[in-house]
Amino acid sequence: MASVKPSVPKGMRDFSPAEMVKRNYIFDTIKSVFRKFGYQQIETPTMENSATLMGKYGDEGDRLIFKVLNSGDYLSKAQPEWLATTNAKLTNHISEKALRYDLTVPFARYVVQHQNEITFPFKRFQVQPVWRADRPQKGRYREFYQCDADVVGSNSLLNEAEFILIYDEVLSKLGLTDFTIKINNRKILAGIAEIIGKPELIVDMTVAIDKLDKIGLEGVVSELLTKGFTQEDVDRLQPVILLQGANAEKLEKLKIILSASETGLKGIAELETIFGYLQSFTLLKATVEVDITLARGLNYYTGAIFEVKTNETVMGSIGGGGRYDDLTGMFGLKGLTGAGISFGADRIYDVLEELKLFPEASNQTTRVLICPFDISAETFALPLLQQLRTAGINAELYPAGAKIKKQLDYANNKNIPYVVVIGSDEVQSGEITLKNMQTGEQQKVSAAQVSEAVK
Amino acid sequence: MASVKPSVPKGMRDFSPAEMVKRNYIFDTIKSVFRKFGYQQIETPTMENSATLMGKYGDEGDRLIFKVLNSGDYLSKAQPEWLATTNAKLTNHISEKALRYDLTVPFARYVVQHQNEITFPFKRFQVQPVWRADRPQKGRYREFYQCDADVVGSNSLLNEAEFILIYDEVLSKLGLTDFTIKINNRKILAGIAEIIGKPELIVDMTVAIDKLDKIGLEGVVSELLTKGFTQEDVDRLQPVILLQGANAEKLEKLKIILSASETGLKGIAELETIFGYLQSFTLLKATVEVDITLARGLNYYTGAIFEVKTNETVMGSIGGGGRYDDLTGMFGLKGLTGAGISFGADRIYDVLEELKLFPEASNQTTRVLICPFDISAETFALPLLQQLRTAGINAELYPAGAKIKKQLDYANNKNIPYVVVIGSDEVQSGEITLKNMQTGEQQKVSAAQVSEAVK
Repeated sequence: MASVKPSVPKGMRDFSPAEMVKRNYIFDTIKSVFRKFGYQQIETPTMENSATLMGKYGDEGDRLIFKVLNSGDYLSKAQPEWLATTNAKLTNHISEKALRYDLTVPFARYVVQHQNEITFPFKRFQVQPVWRADRPQKGRYREFYQCDADVVGSNSLLNEAEFILIYDEVLSKLGLTDFTIKINNRKILAGIAEIIGKPELIVDMTVAIDKLDKIGLEGVVSELLTKGFTQEDVDRLQPVILLQGANAEKLEKLKIILSASETGLKGIAELETIFGYLQSFTLLKATVEVDITLARGLNYYTGAIFEVKTNETVMGSIGGGGRYDDLTGMFGLKGLTGAGISFGADRIYDVLEELKLFPEASNQTTRVLICPFDISAETFALPLLQQLRTAGINAELYPAGAKIKKQLDYANNKNIPYVVVIGSDEVQSGEITLKNMQTGEQQKVSAAQVSEAVK
Repeated sequence: MASVKPSVPKGMRDFSPAEMVKRNYIFDTIKSVFRKFGYQQIETPTMENSATLMGKYGDEGDRLIFKVLNSGDYLSKAQPEWLATTNAKLTNHISEKALRYDLTVPFARYVVQHQNEITFPFKRFQVQPVWRADRPQKGRYREFYQCDADVVGSNSLLNEAEFILIYDEVLSKLGLTDFTIKINNRKILAGIAEIIGKPELIVDMTVAIDKLDKIGLEGVVSELLTKGFTQEDVDRLQPVILLQGANAEKLEKLKIILSASETGLKGIAELETIFGYLQSFTLLKATVEVDITLARGLNYYTGAIFEVKTNETVMGSIGGGGRYDDLTGMFGLKGLTGAGISFGADRIYDVLEELKLFPEASNQTTRVLICPFDISAETFALPLLQQLRTAGINAELYPAGAKIKKQLDYANNKNIPYVVVIGSDEVQSGEITLKNMQTGEQQKVSAAQVSEAVK
C-alpha cells in the first residue's frame, strides 16, 4: 500500500492528550458554573434536516453549511439536466441533511419540538462542535466547539444579571484577573437612531460607531456622513459616542439625551434594573461597563447585549450574548422570549496559554509511574499498583522489559510527577524509593505509605 | 411561515437534560477509570478525508459511511456523463470528506500522523460520536457514541489483564453486581482449525461454533457439515466446543487437544499469563470465563479477545475488544502491536435504566430553588442565592412574579430536592423555611444555615 502520510481535512484538528487536558479544564469549568446557576445540559444531533438550517443564517451562512450526501442510491432518480443547473438545485436533489452550523438554531428547533415536555423557564446549556465551510485561517477553524447557555420563557432581567455573574465566576476560576463585561441595550441604540430622526439607519449607525476603537472619532464621522447622516445628525450623535464616566453617570446623561424616546428610556431602565440586581451580588474580578458603541447581532437581539474582553492580553471578544424576543418564531412558536451567552473556548484557550494560567497538576493525568527493573519486580509491584488505584490515584506500571532510562523518559513525556523504581533491593527489603520528577527529590517509603506520599 | 413541527433526521436523537445527566454519569465513570489506568484522552475531527476511511470497513462499511458534499462550487467541473455512471464514481467527484465511522481507523491515522510526537507505549482513550447510514431500528442509531481505550506499542499481556480490571471497576462502579468477562484467543481458534487439518476453514468454523448459545450443538454440527467439515472433523471438534470446567481446567484440557499446534499452545500460554497477572489483583464483581466459542472481529484480532455480558438482564454484549498486531499498517506504519476495548454506552444506559441503578442525586442538577412571593422577597433572597453558590451548591432563584404553585411545579419537574419559600414573614424575621421536596419535611433555619442543611 502506498504510504502517503495521512492528514486531517483542512481547518480541522486533532487534539493531543496534553491539549485535551487543557480543553477539558476549560469546558469543565464552564459547565460546572452553568450548572451552579441551574442551567441543564442538552445535546442535539450533529446532523439536522437541511430544512431546519437553510435560510436561518443568510445567504452567506447557507453557503457555509456542510451538506451531507444522501446515503444509498441517491442517483436513482437522476435527471441529466441537474448537472446543467446550479449547485443549490442539485444539492436539493442529492442531500437532505446538513451539519450543525451553530447551537442556537438547533436549540430553537429542540424547544419547539419538545415544547410539551419542557418546564419553562427552560435554562439549557450546550457544549458541542459546529461546522462551517469558511476559509480556514489563524484562529478560525472549520470545526470548533461552542459553549452556549440560554434561558427561554423568562423575561426577568435577573437572567441578564446572572449572565454577568456566570462570566465573572468562570473567568475568575480560570485565573483571569482583569476583564471587562461590556453591556449595551438594543433599545438604547434604537432610541439614539430615533432621536436623530433616522430610525431606518440604525444598522448603518451602529456599524459605524462600533468601529470607534479601531478608526477613531474622525473615521466614524466620515463613515456616518457617507451613509446618509447629515452634519447636524453627527453633531447630535457625538456626545453619545463619546459618552464618558461611571456607568450610573453614563445612564443619567443618556436619559437626558433620549428623553424623547420611549424605546430608548426603556433600554436605560433595563440596564438600571440589571445594575440593581448586581448591587446584591459581589463580583470576583469582572469590571462591568456600559458601552454604547457595542453592537452585536443586531438583527437578532432585542434587549441587553453583552461582550467580554480580557485586558491582560490582546485578543478579540472571549464571550458575548444578549436577549432576543423571538428565537422560536422561525419554527412557528411565537412570543417566547429568551436570553443567552456563549464562551469562545478557542480564544480562552489561547489566553490561558499565553498567560500561563493552565494548572500544573490535573486529575486527568497519571500521578505515579511504577518502573520495574525486571519481571520479578513487576510481579512484586502489582499489589502496589492496585493499592494506589484503590486509593483513587491514577497510576501505571511500565511493563517489565524496558530499560529504566526509557521508563523515566516515558514519565517525563507524560508529565507524570512521581515515579517508583523497583529492583531486587526493593523486592527484598519491601522499602521503596519514591522520586519526585519535578524536584528530583527521592524518599524511601514503605509500600503502604506511597499513596499518602503522592496525594 | 408554515409551522411544520420540526424533527431530527431518522436514527438520530436529541438528549434531554435528564438523559444527559444519566449519559454523563456513564461517560464520566468510564473516563475516570480509563484515566486511573493511565489512558489519555484524544479527540479526532468529525470529518476525515474520504481516502482515510474508504476501503477500511469492507464494501458494506463503505456504503454506510456518510459522505459530505464538497463546499463551494462543486459542480464547476461537472461532466454530463457523471450522472450516467455509478453512485460511487459521482461521489468521488463531488465529495472528498466523510464522517467518522468508528474510533479505530481515525486512531490509527492519528498514530501514524503524529508518530514523532507520541511516546510509546501510547495509551489513549476516545469518547466521541460515530455515524453509520444503517437502517435504524430499536437500539440501533445512525449517530451514537463509542468509548474506546487502546494501547499501541506494548506487547505486554499486563495490558490485557488491566482491560479486565477496567471492565470490572467501571461496571462495578455503575452498580452492576453480576457480569461475565468472556475471554478467548485468536491463536487458540487457529490451533483448533489446524489440528482438524482445516486451517483454511477457520472463519466458517468460528462463525458456526460462535452460534452454540443460539442454535445448540446440533445446529452447530449441521452448519459445520454444510461448510466443508467431515463427520470425523466434527467428532474432533466436539470436545472443544463442549469444553467444561473452571478456567484452569479448560486450559489444561485444551493443552492436550492442541498439543500438536504451536500456535494453539501459544494462545493458551497467553491466556495463562493473563490469568497469572489477575492473581495479583482483586476483582470487585466480575467473573472471568474462558469461552472457546467466542469469536469477535476475526479478521482483525490476533491474540486475546474479550466480550462482556451482564447476567442481571437479557442484553447483548456491553463491551468487547482484543489484541491486534497490525493496526497502523493500513497507513504504512508496520509492526506496531496494539490492544483495545470498548464500552457499549447505549446498552449500558438501558441496563442501568432497567435495573434502576442510576443514582438519585447528582451534582449536575440544581440542589436548591429559592421561591420568592414577590419582588421584595426576591431582593431579600439574592444574598442567600450567592451564599449558596459560593458554598459550591447549585442553586436557582425563580424570578419574582410567578405563583408559588408554579414555582414548586418547576422544582418538581427539574427534580430539585430542596426549596426555600420566601414571603414577607421571612423577610421580616430573617428565618427561612427549607422544604425537602422528597419527604415533604419542612424546617426553619437561618439564612446562614441553609448551605449546611442542604449539603
